[in-house]
Amino acid sequence: MPANMQSCIEECLTCHRICVETTQHCLEKGGKHAEAKHIRTLLDCAQICATSADFMLRGSDLHVNTCAACAEVCEACAKSCDRIADDAEMKRCADVCRRCAASCREMAGTRRAA
Amino acid sequence: MPANMQSCIEECLTCHRICVETTQHCLEKGGKHAEAKHIRTLLDCAQICATSADFMLRGSDLHVNTCAACAEVCEACAKSCDRIADDAEMKRCADVCRRCAASCREMAGTRRAA
Amino acid sequence: MPANMQSCIEECLTCHRICVETTQHCLEKGGKHAEAKHIRTLLDCAQICATSADFMLRGSDLHVNTCAACAEVCEACAKSCDRIADDAEMKRCADVCRRCAASCREMAGTRRAA
Amino acid sequence: MPANMQSCIEECLTCHRICVETTQHCLEKGGKHAEAKHIRTLLDCAQICATSADFMLRGSDLHVNTCAACAEVCEACAKSCDRIADDAEMKRCADVCRRCAASCREMAGTRRAA
Repeated sequence: MPANMQSCIEECLTCHRICVETTQHCLEKGGKHAEAKHIRTLLDCAQICATSADFMLRGSDLHVNTCAACAEVCEACAKSCDRIADDAEMKRCADVCRRCAASCREMAGTRRAA
Repeated sequence: MPANMQSCIEECLTCHRICVETTQHCLEKGGKHAEAKHIRTLLDCAQICATSADFMLRGSDLHVNTCAACAEVCEACAKSCDRIADDAEMKRCADVCRRCAASCREMAGTRRAA
Repeated sequence: MPANMQSCIEECLTCHRICVETTQHCLEKGGKHAEAKHIRTLLDCAQICATSADFMLRGSDLHVNTCAACAEVCEACAKSCDRIADDAEMKRCADVCRRCAASCREMAGTRRAA
Repeated sequence: MPANMQSCIEECLTCHRICVETTQHCLEKGGKHAEAKHIRTLLDCAQICATSADFMLRGSDLHVNTCAACAEVCEACAKSCDRIADDAEMKRCADVCRRCAASCREMAGTRRAA
């Protein structure tokens, strides 16, 4: 397996994990942390990251499709986390999502929309 | 929820189910039915269909990304099933995959690659 | 496939779907609908229902283990929904969870804890 | 989060990953490696490990139910791998499954069946 795919698997698995944990953190905090759209985006991100990782673990050529989707969803999740300032956990989640998005874009052979 | 999204959810859930069942059918048959790439594609298809259905069930705008990926993977799975002639179950799986691909393309707002 | 397993697959897939939809309904309503523990239980229920359905779709003997787990989680989810009175969607979710729990207990060969 | 839960999450995520990778290895090898029941057990194990990990990542009390199921499925998967001698990858998978089973039993508060 190429090194950048190995690395992308790690990023996706880490991002899955952080998004599942962050969902609970946000629900506990309440208020804007627990807005429906934000929680939905975290759930979306957790799920596509797990799916994308599995495609790569299976060695599937079709990973380009899931990685392309994953990059977009991770970017959206990072933006959703950015909206909530002054919270170290949201900052951490946004950072992990952005690293995962970059890695997935590389695997998908796509460039970032300007 | 718009009628075409409702319909796409049904197609994705049906396609998930058929792909999981067909995987076992192919493993039991052995030979070219059980080639690694074919089984991998069925597993890929089952997983992205479930993921895509969940995005729509959550009412997420990001479903365009998972539907676009799902359409490509379903089309690849239909082609993989086509390779194996003279088997009613492969024919059924290919048909379901193509219906799901068409529905997902509509939801993703994409056109079929010529 | 035996008729009661076929029926249990349907219950699990329906319960997965209702729990995913109900999660979003609860997040939109806010307040006690969106308490962290309630949302977590809905997410748990959606996930084990999908897992349990897949074990049965694969024709796996190990479904007794996932059905036993699914029955307990569905029962817990029904109780969590019961706490929120005066809401038709919570009532519907509780009903579906209880039907799924009964079906899973039958498949697991377990009896309901008194 | 208690240290043994943290450790169990790691075991489940590692076991998920190894089972997904081992599935492809077995399909490539063919023969008894690719028997339907063996592949099915690997798929079962991969899925319940991911589910069990997510329950713990959500901090759910209901993890006892998924960990109990996961322990049984991991044990069955280890036995299925044991049947195929002289293969370092099957040995590795069996070892990881047994570590995960032991960790899940501890989290479920159950003892190993004699």
